[in-house]
Amino acid sequence: MASRGVSIDEDLESARHDYEALVRQGVSLDLTRGKLDPLQLDLSGDLLALPGDRYLSADGVDCRNYGGPPQGLRELREIFSGLLQVPVDQLVASGNSSLELMHDCVVHALLGTVPGAKGRWVDEERVAFLCPVPGYDRHFSLTERFGIEMISVPMTPEGPDMDMVERLVAADAGIKGIWCVPKYSNPDGTCYSDETVRRLAAMPAAAPDFRIFWDNAYAAHHLTDDEIEIADVLAACADAGHPDRAFVFGSTSKVTWAGAGVAFFGSSAANVSWLLGHSAKRSIGPDKVNQLRHALFLRDAEGVRAQMRRQRELLAPKFEAVDRILTERLGGTGLATWSAPKGGYFIALNVPDGCAREVVRRAAEAGIALTKAGATHPYGDDPRDRTIRIAPSYPGLAELEQAIEGLAVCVRLVGHERELAPAAS
Amino acid sequence: MASRGVSIDEDLESARHDYEALVRQGVSLDLTRGKLDPLQLDLSGDLLALPGDRYLSADGVDCRNYGGPPQGLRELREIFSGLLQVPVDQLVASGNSSLELMHDCVVHALLGTVPGAKGRWVDEERVAFLCPVPGYDRHFSLTERFGIEMISVPMTPEGPDMDMVERLVAADAGIKGIWCVPKYSNPDGTCYSDETVRRLAAMPAAAPDFRIFWDNAYAAHHLTDDEIEIADVLAACADAGHPDRAFVFGSTSKVTWAGAGVAFFGSSAANVSWLLGHSAKRSIGPDKVNQLRHALFLRDAEGVRAQMRRQRELLAPKFEAVDRILTERLGGTGLATWSAPKGGYFIALNVPDGCAREVVRRAAEAGIALTKAGATHPYGDDPRDRTIRIAPSYPGLAELEQAIEGLAVCVRLVGHERELAPAAS
Repeated sequence: MASRGVSIDEDLESARHDYEALVRQGVSLDLTRGKLDPLQLDLSGDLLALPGDRYLSADGVDCRNYGGPPQGLRELREIFSGLLQVPVDQLVASGNSSLELMHDCVVHALLGTVPGAKGRWVDEERVAFLCPVPGYDRHFSLTERFGIEMISVPMTPEGPDMDMVERLVAADAGIKGIWCVPKYSNPDGTCYSDETVRRLAAMPAAAPDFRIFWDNAYAAHHLTDDEIEIADVLAACADAGHPDRAFVFGSTSKVTWAGAGVAFFGSSAANVSWLLGHSAKRSIGPDKVNQLRHALFLRDAEGVRAQMRRQRELLAPKFEAVDRILTERLGGTGLATWSAPKGGYFIALNVPDGCAREVVRRAAEAGIALTKAGATHPYGDDPRDRTIRIAPSYPGLAELEQAIEGLAVCVRLVGHERELAPAAS
Repeated sequence: MASRGVSIDEDLESARHDYEALVRQGVSLDLTRGKLDPLQLDLSGDLLALPGDRYLSADGVDCRNYGGPPQGLRELREIFSGLLQVPVDQLVASGNSSLELMHDCVVHALLGTVPGAKGRWVDEERVAFLCPVPGYDRHFSLTERFGIEMISVPMTPEGPDMDMVERLVAADAGIKGIWCVPKYSNPDGTCYSDETVRRLAAMPAAAPDFRIFWDNAYAAHHLTDDEIEIADVLAACADAGHPDRAFVFGSTSKVTWAGAGVAFFGSSAANVSWLLGHSAKRSIGPDKVNQLRHALFLRDAEGVRAQMRRQRELLAPKFEAVDRILTERLGGTGLATWSAPKGGYFIALNVPDGCAREVVRRAAEAGIALTKAGATHPYGDDPRDRTIRIAPSYPGLAELEQAIEGLAVCVRLVGHERELAPAAS
C-alpha cells in the first residue's frame, strides 16, 4: 500500500482531476427530495379548474359546507380501495398528507387508547418502534420527536430481516410498532415478499397493541412492465387472528400533486372507528371539495393506472439514466453498489463503509445537493456511513445526468482516497 | 298557585293547544349547527374553477409541489393579517380547519414543550382550562378528550368574569389555558371589551406557560353597521410583558366555504417557531393550491370585507326574524331572554332554570332539532339547565320562521308547566 502523498494511485489522480473539473463547472443541482418534475405536475393540470360547476358528491353532500361523511367522499374511496388493498368501508379519505395521518395515529395512541391497548402509550414506561434500514427519514423524525425509541432492523431483498423482527417483537412488550414501506421502499426500492407479509401478520407480539405502520406510498408507482403486487396486509392480519394489527397509509401526492392531494388511512373496522372518534374532536371534516376534484379527475381505478403510466413515461428514463451512468462510471470499481428499483421514487447508493458523509460533503462543495448522509437511519446515524439516497424525479434529464456524473466523480474521489489512506478517516 | 291537573292556567292551556297543532304539522327543521345556507356558499362559486391557469404563488413557488413556505402563502397571509390583528410574519396559513390548529396546539403542548413551560403538560400532575360559559361545545369536547379539567367561568356583557379569571389564574399553576371567542362569541354574541382584553393580557399567571386560546372565528362576521372592533390581543400581551401568552385562530370557514377553506394561526415569533417546528414533523406542508385559490378569489382585505357584506345581506334577515318572533311570542312573558348579537352565527336563548332540556326534548318531538341542551357548557352539563343555542344560518327564512315559532311554543309549554308544577321536575 502506498504511503500518503508519495506514490498516488492513478485512479485517485484521475478522480482528483475530474473533481477539480467538476468544481470549476460551478453547477447547482439538487437531488435531495422526491419532489415531482413540473412535467409530472402538468399531467394533472385539469385539477386547476375542477370541480368546475359541481359541488355535490355522488350521494348528494354539498362538499362546500360542513357535514358529510367523516370518512371522506365514497366515490374517491372507491377509486383507491383496490389500489390500496383496503375495503372501501374501511378506507378513510383525508387531507393533503399521509404523514399527517401517521403522526396523528401515533398521537392518538399516545394520548388515547388504541384498540387492544391497556392504556395510553404515554403512560408506558417505554415505547419503541422497529425501523427497517435504510428507511424513510420523515418516519424516523416523527418517531424521535415523541421520544419513541427506534430500533434498527436491516432490510433484506424480501423486506425487513424477519428473524430479527419476530424475535424482538415476541420478547419486548415495549415495541409498539414497525415502520414499513412495503412496495418500492424508500430508499432502496425493495418489495416485501408474500412470506414477509405473512410473517409480519402472524408473528406473536408481546405488546397486545402492536401496530404495523404500512406506508404504501408507492402502491401504483411502477417504473417497469413488471408491476409488482404485494400481499394484502389487512387480509393477512385478519387471517392470522390479528385483525387490528395494521394501519395502511397512502396518498395521491405522487399520483396528482404533492402540494394539494388527498391522503388515505385504511385498517380494521375497530381501528377506523378509533381514528374517526379522535378525528371528530380535532376537525369538523376534511376538505371535501378537493376530494370531489380528485374523484372527477381520476374517475376510477383505471384512471389512476393510466395516470401512473403517464408518470412512468416521465420518470423511468431518469431512473435508467442513473443506472446507466453509475454502471459506466462505477461498475467494476468495487466502490459502489446501488438499487435498480422497479418502482417508487428513490435509488439507494451504497459506497464503501465510512465514505457516505464525505461523498455528500464533496458533492455539496461541487454544487450537488444530496439528502444528508445518515438520513436513511434512525437518529440520522448510519453506523456504517455508507448509504446515500438519490432522488432522481425533480431535475430535468440533462441536469440529472450531470448530477449523477458529478456524484460518480465524488464517489471515485472519496473511495480512492479511503483505499489509499484507510486509517486517516 | 294552582294544584296539579285541577285549575290549569289559561296560558298553559293555550300553549298545549299550540303545541298539539305544531306536532300535527309534522315539520322537520334543523337549528343544530352553524352550517352555511347554500346561498352563502354560492357567493364563493368562483372558487370552483380557480386557480384556473395559475399555480405559482406571488413569490414563484409551484403550489402543486412539495416545498414552499411552511407558514403558507404570503399573499394569503397578507390578506388576513389585519383582519385577524396578527403581523403577517407571525401568521400561519394552514389547512381546512382552525379547530385542527387548536387541537394540535394542545397536543404539541402535551407532548412537546411550549415556550415558557418547564416540560410537557402530559407530565404535569394536573392540567386545567378555564371555560367561559356559555361557550363552544367543540372547544369543550377537545379539552375533555385529553382529560384536561374544565373550570367554568360565567360570561358577562364584557367577556368572561375577569375578577374570577384573575383570581383563579393567579392562584393555580395547573390552569394552563382559557378558551375565548372574543368577538360575537358562540353562542351569545358577546364582544370582549378593551378592558377585558387588557386584563387577560396583563394578569399574573401562576403557570409560566399559561395560554389564551383566542378563537377569533367571527373576526369579520358583522350583522349590523356597528362593526365591532376588539382590542389587539397579541399587542396587549406584548405590552404587558407576556408576549407568548396568546394563540390566535381564525379561518375562512364562514367567509368562503366551511368544507374547503383555509385556517390561520397567529402568535409571537417564539410560538410560531414552536408550532412550525412540530408541524414540520407532521406534514410536508399545507394544501398550497387552496391557499392560492383563496388569495386569487378574495384579492385583499377589502375583498374579504365586501364578501362579508354579501354574507350579511343573507344572514341578517334571519337573525332579525328570530328576534322578532321571540319578541312577539315570548316578550313580556318572563319565560325567556335571548341575545341580539351584532355578528357571528348564534343566538343564546335562556329559558327558566331547569327547562332547557325539556324544551329541546319537546321541540325534537315536534320535529325541530336543536343543539343538545347543555352543549354550551363543559361536560355537556349546564348546571342551571337554561341555555339553548339557536343556529339560524342554515334554513331558509320561511323554514327558520316556522322553526322559531315552534320553539316559542315549546318554551311557553314547558315554562308554564314548570310554573304550575315547580316541584314536579
